[in-house]
Amino acid sequence: MRVLSKQVTGYMEKSSWIRRMFEAGMELKKKYGAEAVCDFSLGNPDLPPPPEVGVALREIAEEVCRPFGLGYMPNFGYPFVRESLAGEISKEQGVPITAQDLVITCGAAGAINTVYRAVLEPGDEVVCPAPYFVEYGFYAENHGGSLRPVPTNPTDFSLDLSAMDAAITDKTRVVLINSPNNPTGRVYTLAELKGLTDILLRHNKGRERPIFLIADEPYRFLAYDGAVVPSLLPLYPYTVVVSSFSKNLSLAGARVGYALINPDMPEKTQMHDGIVLANRILGFVNAPALAQLLVHKAAGSQVDVGRYQGRRDAMAKVLTETGYTFAKPSGAFYFFPQAPGGDDVRFVNLLLEEKILGVPGSGFGAPGYFRLAFCVAQEVINRSREGFARAMAKVS
Amino acid sequence: MRVLSKQVTGYMEKSSWIRRMFEAGMELKKKYGAEAVCDFSLGNPDLPPPPEVGVALREIAEEVCRPFGLGYMPNFGYPFVRESLAGEISKEQGVPITAQDLVITCGAAGAINTVYRAVLEPGDEVVCPAPYFVEYGFYAENHGGSLRPVPTNPTDFSLDLSAMDAAITDKTRVVLINSPNNPTGRVYTLAELKGLTDILLRHNKGRERPIFLIADEPYRFLAYDGAVVPSLLPLYPYTVVVSSFSKNLSLAGARVGYALINPDMPEKTQMHDGIVLANRILGFVNAPALAQLLVHKAAGSQVDVGRYQGRRDAMAKVLTETGYTFAKPSGAFYFFPQAPGGDDVRFVNLLLEEKILGVPGSGFGAPGYFRLAFCVAQEVINRSREGFARAMAKVS
Repeated sequence: MRVLSKQVTGYMEKSSWIRRMFEAGMELKKKYGAEAVCDFSLGNPDLPPPPEVGVALREIAEEVCRPFGLGYMPNFGYPFVRESLAGEISKEQGVPITAQDLVITCGAAGAINTVYRAVLEPGDEVVCPAPYFVEYGFYAENHGGSLRPVPTNPTDFSLDLSAMDAAITDKTRVVLINSPNNPTGRVYTLAELKGLTDILLRHNKGRERPIFLIADEPYRFLAYDGAVVPSLLPLYPYTVVVSSFSKNLSLAGARVGYALINPDMPEKTQMHDGIVLANRILGFVNAPALAQLLVHKAAGSQVDVGRYQGRRDAMAKVLTETGYTFAKPSGAFYFFPQAPGGDDVRFVNLLLEEKILGVPGSGFGAPGYFRLAFCVAQEVINRSREGFARAMAKVS
Repeated sequence: MRVLSKQVTGYMEKSSWIRRMFEAGMELKKKYGAEAVCDFSLGNPDLPPPPEVGVALREIAEEVCRPFGLGYMPNFGYPFVRESLAGEISKEQGVPITAQDLVITCGAAGAINTVYRAVLEPGDEVVCPAPYFVEYGFYAENHGGSLRPVPTNPTDFSLDLSAMDAAITDKTRVVLINSPNNPTGRVYTLAELKGLTDILLRHNKGRERPIFLIADEPYRFLAYDGAVVPSLLPLYPYTVVVSSFSKNLSLAGARVGYALINPDMPEKTQMHDGIVLANRILGFVNAPALAQLLVHKAAGSQVDVGRYQGRRDAMAKVLTETGYTFAKPSGAFYFFPQAPGGDDVRFVNLLLEEKILGVPGSGFGAPGYFRLAFCVAQEVINRSREGFARAMAKVS
């Protein structure tokens, strides 16, 4: 009998490219040993959580075996954690925010789903620059919406503002921006963002329902060469920032992040209450208690950004010397080079023959490119040089 | 402008009775002091997590500050945690299950939402005996479905099998059973459950899509006087058990539970993969890492059931001596007495005048009753006697 819904059955058949590469990689590693494979397919940070995380957990261990020590709490999270996060985030955004502007969530993925549950009506569209994080399409469809990707400029992945403008219609409920970007490493400039928010302000006029700007910022801390990640809060009142501690504290599996409602949003209280309700009824109930306590106690610490910068430079060197064309990433831990020969799926398969794992750009709405995640040991990057050179030679 | 969707705006206006009582309680406690109030409104276990939880956390603290220590994992959870849970659950259910039958989730609430995301089509119905847990309606509506409550027998809340039979139509995709029950404390007997699954087996014949039976069992460990909670797995192949460690380890805020697919389900692999995908795309990604490690290491321990039994007996004594009519709960930590005078909202307000907090049955699809959660100190139960007597006197 048919156990899954038609939509989910369709999803299963498509599966994701990241997953397919993951499975191909497992096979390669089984066959040749993990050391023989250069795995750039996953954005799973390999740096250990900073030592403050261990210290925090030891403290938590002494405190929780008391009544309600790990019990239910308000659906927006522990009030004292929200308070301390508000302080941290005010510094990061350069804008004063209060605890009441925050909902602590099950990571940024949980935050996006929760915001969508609160605001989307059936048929609403989410406009998003492409290439984009592969899960974005599912998140919109979970709540009756759909994703409308808009290509960026092909050389540097900067926003194509007139294309964004043209894509916004009466159906648009959300514009979703991810900077520093996965998969391109692009950090949008203040000029680009100002251009975008001017467009949104214009479209908002006379509408019964505002267009929200969701800024997905888990890589905010990870910008190189002094690149600045501008805050969207001063530019547009209907901004919601979503983020997580998955990357800066290397705890992606612990599932903690937040949704930050712009303190300038006139309906911010209503928006907050709606997001809190959505967080409850979607079954998150509250962000995981232990992870909340952890980010509270380890606040201010983070992994060594210098190590990621060193890897980025090493990767850029390997790719340049072996003849690849790419925009050097200003943030996050991804390269998104052009696929030699133009066919990304074919080229990723050539890399596979060299025991190098990448992900075709097709999986990010951008055929003709491929993604390399450099959250791996520098030794792996150096070792990959010959394989990259041989794959290139096969195409030329 | 209108920031929330129409549906969520409607939810906000209804709000929940539990929440209203919570707010009324906050006010009372502020005015008279927490010690003066008898708060039976919340099912938030007050027993501390067992000492094994602290021990486990101390071990975890020593282990996580290494590469991938808290990183991403397969979306179904840590393989070794799934393995050990499978062993535990096989004993509880009296049926051998394997790790491949399990998806570790963000509590039972996360599990139900994840299963619904995988199987519901727009317009599908979830049939559920009433009274029922207030969130069940939201969970169905999150995924395009709706809840169809079916009254139980009014004296003992046993299943009304012919009413259940009559409620099942072509639209029915799920029958949802919660035993031991919140809010009634009812433990369904093997005869009732056999009656129900016979009905489901009959309805399933000739259908393209099966009717799933979801067994929501977070209170399985909490049955009194030797009451047995029969497993539904041997009775019906399309059973999915959902549960959590919120109550047996007192860690409701930590958010960990599971969905268990019946090993007898012919399409179990497809079902598993669909639930894992749903867990990923709804933004849970994986069940919180720290809580997974915790239940793994603290496996086999639980809070002292004897203390809950003592409180149940004390509460039964208070309610009997003050003249209330109720079915003595065989499990969970709730009483669901008849509201004297018949109007549950009015009676709960009378209790409020006595600084006693309960929840009207209307909030559980059962007007004319009210819920008392006895996961509170025995002293509170004893102290409530006079208030219960006075409220009763006001009605008589």
